[in-house]
Amino acid sequence: MEKMEYSSFVYRPIGIIHSPYQKDREKPPPQGVYSPENRGHVDIFPQFSEGLKDLDGFSHIILLFHFHLSADYDLVCYPRGDRELRGVFATRSPRRPNPIGCSVVELERIENHRLFIRRVDVYDGTPLLDIKPYVPVFDEICKGADSLDGRVRLGWLAERLKREKRNGIL
Amino acid sequence: MEKMEYSSFVYRPIGIIHSPYQKDREKPPPQGVYSPENRGHVDIFPQFSEGLKDLDGFSHIILLFHFHLSADYDLVCYPRGDRELRGVFATRSPRRPNPIGCSVVELERIENHRLFIRRVDVYDGTPLLDIKPYVPVFDEICKGADSLDGRVRLGWLAERLKREKRNGIL
Repeated sequence: MEKMEYSSFVYRPIGIIHSPYQKDREKPPPQGVYSPENRGHVDIFPQFSEGLKDLDGFSHIILLFHFHLSADYDLVCYPRGDRELRGVFATRSPRRPNPIGCSVVELERIENHRLFIRRVDVYDGTPLLDIKPYVPVFDEICKGADSLDGRVRLGWLAERLKREKRNGIL
Repeated sequence: MEKMEYSSFVYRPIGIIHSPYQKDREKPPPQGVYSPENRGHVDIFPQFSEGLKDLDGFSHIILLFHFHLSADYDLVCYPRGDRELRGVFATRSPRRPNPIGCSVVELERIENHRLFIRRVDVYDGTPLLDIKPYVPVFDEICKGADSLDGRVRLGWLAERLKREKRNGIL
């Protein structure tokens, strides 16, 4: 265990995500759901393109990527629109000890090793680490994407999401 | 872009996931949904415990982890119960170019820097890379975890999932 604590893992990008959001110009939405029509594309490096076989059967995919513009991390932070300090693991902040992001996007089509996607929520040039097929029965917990109650509790985020729904942002 | 292709990212574990599944003894289920009652716990390294603030408000969390028993990867593979070679990115195989796993688990409670979880589907000793709050409106696409049709297409997996539902495995 002590040993594990000091081991490290080296990952290399398998491709690059392209989006309309350029650093210092325009920020991406905080999550894809805020701009579901947003288009982008992913260029997979040719040496990995064989791994794309059968992916075109899936309408949605999970992208794991490196937040390449996050230079450091904070263990607590003020989330957007919140006046209280929250633990980073209770937020989706990109300033995380391991700056890995995770987005579900819609896969429109694949041409050679370019994936055309919608619901993109990352900066242009984001290094891609992995793609997984999105499978509701594996990846979804509650009945209905709109439910904010029932079996799922949303902690400090519940109030903000309710407010955003009321204001038509979400 | 050429430069990006050769850059790499170094991540360090923030904790260790413990489960009933020991290497060479018992395999974990392929996904948490196959054994939703399965219990485990996550020990967060003390230097990261401040980041757990407010996490106890969430009933479900996303764990990103390193598949530490995957020594290598295949660009195509035969998924469980399938006789056709599939592209690795169209599967959830642990033998991936960047062996990062992603599981949604139920958070029962937190004691100090130990998280008690259910729906665990990884080997004991799995290094944890990140925790994110699970937020249905961000992370879910379709209406209802059981829907296998509608807006979501499931490619080669659709047949297997239907079969597993019919046989009561899922």
